[in-house]
Amino acid sequence: MTDSTLKHLVIVGGGFAGLYAAKTLQKKNIRITLIDRRNFHLFQPLLYQVATGGLSPGDIAYPLRAVLKHNPRARVIQDKVVDIRPASNEVVLRDGGTLQYDYLLLATGVRHQYFGNEQWSESAPGLKTIEDALEVRRRILSAFEEAERCDDPQRRQQLLRFVIVGAGPTGVELAGALAELAQYTMKRNFRHINPADAEVILVEGSDRVLPPYAPKLSAKARAALESLGVTVRTATRVTNIDDTTISLEHNEQTETLAAGTILWAAGVKATVFGRRVAERTETETDRAGRLLVTPELTVPKYDNIYVLGDLAHVRQKNGAQVPGVAPAAMQMGRYAAKSILARIAGKPTKPFNYFDKGSLAVIGRNAAIAEVSGFKLSGFFAWLIWAFIHIHFLIEFGNKMIVSMQWGWNYLTRKRGARLITGKFTPNPDVERDSEPAA
Amino acid sequence: MTDSTLKHLVIVGGGFAGLYAAKTLQKKNIRITLIDRRNFHLFQPLLYQVATGGLSPGDIAYPLRAVLKHNPRARVIQDKVVDIRPASNEVVLRDGGTLQYDYLLLATGVRHQYFGNEQWSESAPGLKTIEDALEVRRRILSAFEEAERCDDPQRRQQLLRFVIVGAGPTGVELAGALAELAQYTMKRNFRHINPADAEVILVEGSDRVLPPYAPKLSAKARAALESLGVTVRTATRVTNIDDTTISLEHNEQTETLAAGTILWAAGVKATVFGRRVAERTETETDRAGRLLVTPELTVPKYDNIYVLGDLAHVRQKNGAQVPGVAPAAMQMGRYAAKSILARIAGKPTKPFNYFDKGSLAVIGRNAAIAEVSGFKLSGFFAWLIWAFIHIHFLIEFGNKMIVSMQWGWNYLTRKRGARLITGKFTPNPDVERDSEPAA
Repeated sequence: MTDSTLKHLVIVGGGFAGLYAAKTLQKKNIRITLIDRRNFHLFQPLLYQVATGGLSPGDIAYPLRAVLKHNPRARVIQDKVVDIRPASNEVVLRDGGTLQYDYLLLATGVRHQYFGNEQWSESAPGLKTIEDALEVRRRILSAFEEAERCDDPQRRQQLLRFVIVGAGPTGVELAGALAELAQYTMKRNFRHINPADAEVILVEGSDRVLPPYAPKLSAKARAALESLGVTVRTATRVTNIDDTTISLEHNEQTETLAAGTILWAAGVKATVFGRRVAERTETETDRAGRLLVTPELTVPKYDNIYVLGDLAHVRQKNGAQVPGVAPAAMQMGRYAAKSILARIAGKPTKPFNYFDKGSLAVIGRNAAIAEVSGFKLSGFFAWLIWAFIHIHFLIEFGNKMIVSMQWGWNYLTRKRGARLITGKFTPNPDVERDSEPAA
Repeated sequence: MTDSTLKHLVIVGGGFAGLYAAKTLQKKNIRITLIDRRNFHLFQPLLYQVATGGLSPGDIAYPLRAVLKHNPRARVIQDKVVDIRPASNEVVLRDGGTLQYDYLLLATGVRHQYFGNEQWSESAPGLKTIEDALEVRRRILSAFEEAERCDDPQRRQQLLRFVIVGAGPTGVELAGALAELAQYTMKRNFRHINPADAEVILVEGSDRVLPPYAPKLSAKARAALESLGVTVRTATRVTNIDDTTISLEHNEQTETLAAGTILWAAGVKATVFGRRVAERTETETDRAGRLLVTPELTVPKYDNIYVLGDLAHVRQKNGAQVPGVAPAAMQMGRYAAKSILARIAGKPTKPFNYFDKGSLAVIGRNAAIAEVSGFKLSGFFAWLIWAFIHIHFLIEFGNKMIVSMQWGWNYLTRKRGARLITGKFTPNPDVERDSEPAA
């Protein structure tokens, strides 16, 4: 089906950047190999909904093969790229096998970072993968279950204390969803505890929530969170985390809180693979390990290697860094696809130009804040825009009907039907497993 | 909120029997404690849809607390009952704590059995829990992914061979869904393999599929399976299973097949807890370890201990055993609830009478076979009945809209949107985990 005289583009990573590049090239005369460790694209901006039982993993993930099945020149491989050889135009797969490319597009994303305190990761998991979200969901729901069983009032209060570190979009949306879960969704679900007694504390190092947004919207977001009962602590630094406590520093005063659940939404950094790419291509990186790419989104020494999405550090003309958000990754993917086509056709390319469509964050059932083309919105109207935009993007992945139904249903009823504790059984790890052989 | 002078019913297990008992007592003057290891009720008859990517776990599971939230006299505890003390009317929880009951209702179900070959369980997982279904889904989808990457034609053929052991309803429905996934859903998804080349083999020890159904329906089911490309091997016994092969015996001839995926749907037996209950209450059991209960569904020596659902061996007046299906469990749950109310009121109770509403099995998109009140149906009309009945039951759990939308969507498009490989990454276990600290 494929013509081996065609140029070959290898895309590593099926996130927004990689997938949008592949989709843009859907009907073009170019061979594509998309490699991802997972067999699905993940709609990461809604991961916090999975973590709080509002959506199921299947609602926000879509098989990569299904997206690309109509392009006979595109091939999907579920595998891991462990290295690249820029001099010979090769990527190296996990089993040592190699693939030759004409153009290479690297968009493997970032992971959490704990700023040198990686030992905190067990006690304060982050939210990057489906597995992360299910683990966070398990911890949140198990805390309520354990509190219901618990007779010690002090321990109960501790179990019902949730601390979220980092008030970027993920932290803010997670705090809002968690507060709503406690305040509304689980009403009348318990007999010994009142889930509304749960304490949700959002900790942020800088002086306001959603630091990249306009200060006015930060204030609105804070007010919306507080009206849901969230305690917002800005200008507060985390100095230590262990299994049951978190230590916070504010105005040079330190305080240690006992908390049943601690969640991390504070920072990202490059992966091992990202650092390897920087090394192999001799590309400078920023503090987080992102690669400083050219205005054409390639690495300086190899103009057939594109680095996109969260892995790339891209400066705009005004000097500002392109933010690590889904719309930016989509734009980069589309740009790289068109740039490659232009170069194959021998045409000149223009530098990448980020078009900021606006920022959105949703806080609970009908509060959101939005900054669209300079307009700053908040409240229900912003929520509608948020819902509309997210459903619009999910349409392309075929999940539209399900997700919009689920949202409509959740919105009307405040139900969160996906409140399942799966995986490990805690807090009692000695449980008999269903699959174990009979004793 | 609760009156401690009320009689106290402890229900162990939130499956169909336990939950229907609790729902029947929703507005009655009795205190209820429902204990389950999980925080959700699972609609087990649709588990095979999760295993084949048609539905998400959240679509077929529903939080137990949400079901019982409107009954202030009902309490839900997520915990495990490890023992019972019939003489002092107590159940013992995992941490050693006890709960006192007036009436006890035990409906903890069964687990797979491998007929003395428990070592097969790793190579041939069964389908009882959400985790089982996700593991089966992972194995099925990973086999196609690995085949796509594989250059050895013999190994590829082996990877695309799926053997399902046991042609009861679960095995038959799983085989149908798996064949449909390969034949239709994944069409054009691969470049090196044709998923329709997958071989689905259904192995059954007795001489026909769906042995409890009428022979005519068994024949229809077999024809429907075969038209989807399933190879049905009846009167065939499994003599050995290891990681990559399964040995079959038919007419005293043994054959060993290499197979990428082997799934177990062949038998059930009592759990450790079930056997302990039999011991403590001095109740006889059948070969599978089910308790032989009285016509009132209690154990012979303690008339305040009910045993229901799959854990109970119930004989009908005609001598036939009540089958281990969801409708039977629901009827037992309702019966026990009413029986307890009658006894509290000092009224006489009638023995349990199973009303067979009919049997249904679905094979692929629009073939099903049904036996309803003596009528034997097959084809699309039977499929409609199947869909109607399942949606009807799910309504009560609030998942109606989502599941019916998902079904409608899948039906129209043959899409299976929940085709996610999550959990372990195989067949390459050495993958870098997202949560691991940077090397």
